[in-house]
Amino acid sequence: MSVLEQLGLRAKEASPVLRGASTGQKNAALGEIARALREQCGAVLEANGEDIANARQNGMSAALIDRLTLTRERVFAMAEGVEQIAALPDPIGEVMEGFTRPNGLEIIKKRVPMGVIGIIYEARPNVTVDAAALCLKSGNVCLLRGGKEAIHSNMALAGIMSRAVEKTGLPGDCVLLLEDISRETAAQMMRMNGVLDVLIPRGGAGLIRSVVQNATVPVIETGTGNCHVYVDSSADLEMAEKIIVNAKAQRPSVCNAAETLLVHREVAERFLPAAGEALKKAGVTLYGCPETCRILPGTAAATEEDYATEYLDYKLAVRVVESLDEAIAHIRRYSTGHSEAIVTRDYESSRRFTAQVDSAAVYVNASTRFTDGGEFGFGAEIGISTQKLHARGPMGLREMTTYQYIIKGSGQIR
Amino acid sequence: MSVLEQLGLRAKEASPVLRGASTGQKNAALGEIARALREQCGAVLEANGEDIANARQNGMSAALIDRLTLTRERVFAMAEGVEQIAALPDPIGEVMEGFTRPNGLEIIKKRVPMGVIGIIYEARPNVTVDAAALCLKSGNVCLLRGGKEAIHSNMALAGIMSRAVEKTGLPGDCVLLLEDISRETAAQMMRMNGVLDVLIPRGGAGLIRSVVQNATVPVIETGTGNCHVYVDSSADLEMAEKIIVNAKAQRPSVCNAAETLLVHREVAERFLPAAGEALKKAGVTLYGCPETCRILPGTAAATEEDYATEYLDYKLAVRVVESLDEAIAHIRRYSTGHSEAIVTRDYESSRRFTAQVDSAAVYVNASTRFTDGGEFGFGAEIGISTQKLHARGPMGLREMTTYQYIIKGSGQIR
Repeated sequence: MSVLEQLGLRAKEASPVLRGASTGQKNAALGEIARALREQCGAVLEANGEDIANARQNGMSAALIDRLTLTRERVFAMAEGVEQIAALPDPIGEVMEGFTRPNGLEIIKKRVPMGVIGIIYEARPNVTVDAAALCLKSGNVCLLRGGKEAIHSNMALAGIMSRAVEKTGLPGDCVLLLEDISRETAAQMMRMNGVLDVLIPRGGAGLIRSVVQNATVPVIETGTGNCHVYVDSSADLEMAEKIIVNAKAQRPSVCNAAETLLVHREVAERFLPAAGEALKKAGVTLYGCPETCRILPGTAAATEEDYATEYLDYKLAVRVVESLDEAIAHIRRYSTGHSEAIVTRDYESSRRFTAQVDSAAVYVNASTRFTDGGEFGFGAEIGISTQKLHARGPMGLREMTTYQYIIKGSGQIR
Repeated sequence: MSVLEQLGLRAKEASPVLRGASTGQKNAALGEIARALREQCGAVLEANGEDIANARQNGMSAALIDRLTLTRERVFAMAEGVEQIAALPDPIGEVMEGFTRPNGLEIIKKRVPMGVIGIIYEARPNVTVDAAALCLKSGNVCLLRGGKEAIHSNMALAGIMSRAVEKTGLPGDCVLLLEDISRETAAQMMRMNGVLDVLIPRGGAGLIRSVVQNATVPVIETGTGNCHVYVDSSADLEMAEKIIVNAKAQRPSVCNAAETLLVHREVAERFLPAAGEALKKAGVTLYGCPETCRILPGTAAATEEDYATEYLDYKLAVRVVESLDEAIAHIRRYSTGHSEAIVTRDYESSRRFTAQVDSAAVYVNASTRFTDGGEFGFGAEIGISTQKLHARGPMGLREMTTYQYIIKGSGQIR
């Protein structure tokens, strides 16, 4: 039996026990995880030191090493994150609806855990703790597969969590880590039909593409955001400037950052000089359509590729459009379905934009940066879904569940 | 550009128009489809005649030819089905929830169409009409790929529907049929990422397995039902007998029919002789565990394989269990997660069975045959989901939708 088959069996054993755990039991396990992370912080930092030494030896970039690095502060922040998840309402057991059929059958639709959730991610060890805690709270066994760069950190963290869970009486196998981090086991994990109820990739576009292309288990595609801000002819231009600067430059590396600015021709001459200046001040380089380049001489020309790119950087494509319709058509063509915003003072423009733009989050007069589990009030998130099946936008605890129908009868037959 | 790429482009063009159609427009299109099907019934029957002639020539079995055969009555029944779908409430536009964040952002979660739904199915031409009508009503463009045995019927039906839709002012491309029915185009269709928002296979286990294994677009797995009926020690044995006979024999070819009977040891001696007789009378052959074979001499021995098989036939595996826990463990091991029933008079048994059995539909004292869109009151169904992502159990119009967040602000930035 392969390592992965063994893990699969253990997951399937633990799943019904965790499914039946009370909110109190799950919260106790989360509390114990937080306590153990703080108490065994030294062991975590030691393991992390090994990963960092290896990374340096392999010539990893400073930015990636920073993502990989744990400090006492960062480990304590993870523990606090776990406690915050414990404090969230338990989604399991909610009766979502219920009705009685003419034949007397009483049907309720009840929220239940998915079962076993696989998470494939990259070199950030905090995902190990975050994902495990979210899965545990939502009653799901997690099977984690992190990047090989973080394997020692992940083994230390998963071991601490598993032992902590076991200490409170739930199966230690509620938190499972795939320690064999070869490409082959990753590929096998994507085909664990009958074990994984869903697989969630968390990471860059390459990882997500690979999972979508190779998985035979159900996948939730997350986190690709080619987001747009459209400045309508009626926009409050001061507001529009603040929104585009925020949407682009407040944190360019995240999926809800804006990548293209669309400006209605009627306001382009008035809006672009000041907005371009403000963006430049924020460190942003523009890639403009011919009209943008005419208004802002010296701007680099945007290519088709620019419109299609999620820069995740201090770069912004800018295009002047003739109409709201042209803006919507541009978004329809290039968007990844994540988040789009219109800045407008016109009722009908706001109505048409929100009705016709088919992205997970559509904003009027606000920054795209709000597409986030915390900002939506979900308390935490496992990712931002950019597919239409199951969940769209920020996925909190509730989006990590499914439902079942419970039907009570008195002998009904057909 | 391949045929499929062209269809993809047409689907993407039609989708936003259909997305924006009012309930009235969609119902008018459905009404026109029903009218056109009746009016052009002759052309449908003629095309169907070609398929039947080919099927005969290819030595298709009588049962399959019956599934393929259309009559005036069957075409008129399809038309009536379309009118019934038109009469159902429109799921689109429902505000599922809404809230205001502390920063003043007003967020609503709104039900919207998926976009483009692919359906791959086998030789039943009625699926062509049924699937197209359900997709249309739920605001989704459908891309249909039926079995090659029904290609002439499907072309006639899809052509009639497409022209009918166009006549009412919506794009004819709301109903698209893949006419090139080679294996290659089917494989390509399963990988139409960026066009298909979901792919739903409707048909036998082989088709569904092939789609799950090969698709890179999101799939909803439907219709595999290895369903169980468990007769508890406290069961009303008369009720139990009626339920198992109904669950097994009322229509054995469907996915919600029972395939295994589990009986508590305490009642096995009293229950099995009469139940076995009643099942035999209904034409059912039993495959029993050793204890069953002792109580009912002459019963064929059940193998592991019997417990794992969805017979879809007048066959039933029977196993005597020591306890409720053993029944639940058996179900956990062999079930496909479709429908299971307990027959009991004991409150705690009913509570534990419904809490611990993790199938889409869990019954107390009723037949598994009720897992059906019509019986649940959904009016119609596109299939019964046996996966946990997105939807479980009967999928009606509402389950063919997704949602988006619409966020109204007044200049909020982070």
